Amino acid sequence: MRDAVILGIGYTRIGELWDRCLKDLAAEAALKAMGEASVDEVDSLYVGSMCAQRLQGQGNLGVLVADQLATPTARTVSLEAACASGGKTFQEAVKAVQYGAVETALAVGAEKLSDALPIDVNAAMTIGEDQDYASYVGLTHIGLQALIARLYMQKFEVTEEQLATFPVNAHRNSVNNPYAQFHNVIEADDVAKSTLLADPLRVLHCAGSADGAAAVVVGSMDAARRMKRKPIRVLACEEGRDTLSITERDNLLTSNATVEAANNAFNEARVSRREINLLEVHDCSASMGLMTLEDLGFVEKGKAPSFAVEGGIALEGKLPTNTMGGLKGRGHPSGATGIYQIVDLVLQLRGEAGKNQIANAARGLACNIGGVGALSIVTVLERM
Amino acid sequence: MRDAVILGIGYTRIGELWDRCLKDLAAEAALKAMGEASVDEVDSLYVGSMCAQRLQGQGNLGVLVADQLATPTARTVSLEAACASGGKTFQEAVKAVQYGAVETALAVGAEKLSDALPIDVNAAMTIGEDQDYASYVGLTHIGLQALIARLYMQKFEVTEEQLATFPVNAHRNSVNNPYAQFHNVIEADDVAKSTLLADPLRVLHCAGSADGAAAVVVGSMDAARRMKRKPIRVLACEEGRDTLSITERDNLLTSNATVEAANNAFNEARVSRREINLLEVHDCSASMGLMTLEDLGFVEKGKAPSFAVEGGIALEGKLPTNTMGGLKGRGHPSGATGIYQIVDLVLQLRGEAGKNQIANAARGLACNIGGVGALSIVTVLERM
Repeated sequence: MRDAVILGIGYTRIGELWDRCLKDLAAEAALKAMGEASVDEVDSLYVGSMCAQRLQGQGNLGVLVADQLATPTARTVSLEAACASGGKTFQEAVKAVQYGAVETALAVGAEKLSDALPIDVNAAMTIGEDQDYASYVGLTHIGLQALIARLYMQKFEVTEEQLATFPVNAHRNSVNNPYAQFHNVIEADDVAKSTLLADPLRVLHCAGSADGAAAVVVGSMDAARRMKRKPIRVLACEEGRDTLSITERDNLLTSNATVEAANNAFNEARVSRREINLLEVHDCSASMGLMTLEDLGFVEKGKAPSFAVEGGIALEGKLPTNTMGGLKGRGHPSGATGIYQIVDLVLQLRGEAGKNQIANAARGLACNIGGVGALSIVTVLERM
Repeated sequence: MRDAVILGIGYTRIGELWDRCLKDLAAEAALKAMGEASVDEVDSLYVGSMCAQRLQGQGNLGVLVADQLATPTARTVSLEAACASGGKTFQEAVKAVQYGAVETALAVGAEKLSDALPIDVNAAMTIGEDQDYASYVGLTHIGLQALIARLYMQKFEVTEEQLATFPVNAHRNSVNNPYAQFHNVIEADDVAKSTLLADPLRVLHCAGSADGAAAVVVGSMDAARRMKRKPIRVLACEEGRDTLSITERDNLLTSNATVEAANNAFNEARVSRREINLLEVHDCSASMGLMTLEDLGFVEKGKAPSFAVEGGIALEGKLPTNTMGGLKGRGHPSGATGIYQIVDLVLQLRGEAGKNQIANAARGLACNIGGVGALSIVTVLERM
């Protein structure tokens, strides 16, 4: 198996982008990434989206985006893996390069959540669950997360202040991120006073809805030789799974998907957790963010709330996390999120993260989750 | 690149299967295929569906099916490519084996169209078009096909009798297919008298809606050594594309996707068209079936109507086509169709096609199409 490297990244601003449709967003991100990579064509195109079918009535995205780009490509693949659609799309591109199927692959994640009724967005965001145990019994994606969050808070005596650390950190970081959805600082008090969505989760605990697209060109080291800019090496991009329905799990407070994906990724990457300088964690809810820190193996189970509230995840902390704002601050255009996580890591590893740049960023890890901890994609990147 | 072979096939009956949900169907087909292949686990699982998101509100199908199977697998991928979802899913499994990423891959296509309002099924079947030029202007998938069918009939003076050949042949073959949706013989007169859907296409020109799932285990030659049954070799499985919107095409009567996919596949397979003994052609409409025969390069452009009406596509004809009933007779559970095509070829190549067995079936070709000729996957299989 050979090395895969990142040759270029591209992305749109995240927010309510009323003037552009899904394929415009995908094309903007893709063409920027191809421009950075100095390629006019790619061997394979991978397109990920979570909600395009339900909200835009649009499928066949591989052909749609290939058409819009007018870029020659031998193969197109459209993927969906709920909120891990972006991570899965990136993974397919990486594997295709690693196994020698292609020299260059373009991974695009695109989502448009603004232009739909909130109730339809809510339904679309729940497709990642086993419907027999979710929608059919009246549970939503956030409802399921809330059940777990309540148990987590009770078991580990998590305070409201501790729970708020993830969104507070996210907004602090996204203030300086030009492409982020939110540019306002929030405090724990604001979080505690925000509207209750599903007890104990409030609006400010949870990532919002947004439009956006992000793209990455992945290639072989041979393809990288043509580049001026230094490529970023993909040390690992691995999957883990838990049961789709949370009713089947022995332990609701651990996502076996994330534990497994992290272990697989560290085995593959041949680096230790101590060698990771920054994290992108899937904070679709504050509790998911905290539990993911633990499941990834960076903090002992139950200790993430105190670790986070004591500054461990801050830019200047021991383990800078979601340095560009994460899902909560940067924004969560669901099917694009996994690619934005890669983009954010690449900016840090290249030293291009602006005011949020952390010192000595040599290696970063991203964890993208689909369903309530059912599917996890863990990626480890390294600057060269 | 190494050889990929088919180790096992599995499938459900096609029809209105009210007693089983999508994941039951997928599991039934997958477990049968794994049973035939004598494998208890697979390295990767690929799941294709066209309409599950819109009609069942169900995404994250890779995890859903992995859960249902309780089969260890390192990776899961959910794909969608409109009516070519099955073909694309099979292709991903084949490429993963060919490039050495896995030893065994399971490709599953599943669809459930019965349990939804017809108007919702119609919308779901149109997701494969560029919505800006389809649904948003009031066009459906069948409406688009009808525009092309009318032009085709005018340009080549196609008679009603000629147009009816595909469905008449399909039903004649599906009568003897135990897993087919339709078991009634129809004649050209029945087709001409059936309800008009979109002029000139009538109900009996078009594949119906159905539920069903089909699965194939693909593996390396090493993996095949454990098998008792002779594997079937995949000589090629290649993609071609045309513009998604038909308004962008120079010539509405040729699908560049199918022309390109066929050329790519024949280059890869290193066999000539004369060495192909039977075809599986994507006859979602009678006109699409005829034009596909031409675009694949087996019949000159405009000559398929006379070729077909003179018996060329019959079981005893020069080029037996859709020998188990095709989309029209066997049934068209959209996202599963591409896998059923592979299943039907495998049965013939193994000599297990029962009353419809053709003599000397050594090599077969399947063409699976997504959108109105926008994406085409051409597969060539060979008995060993």
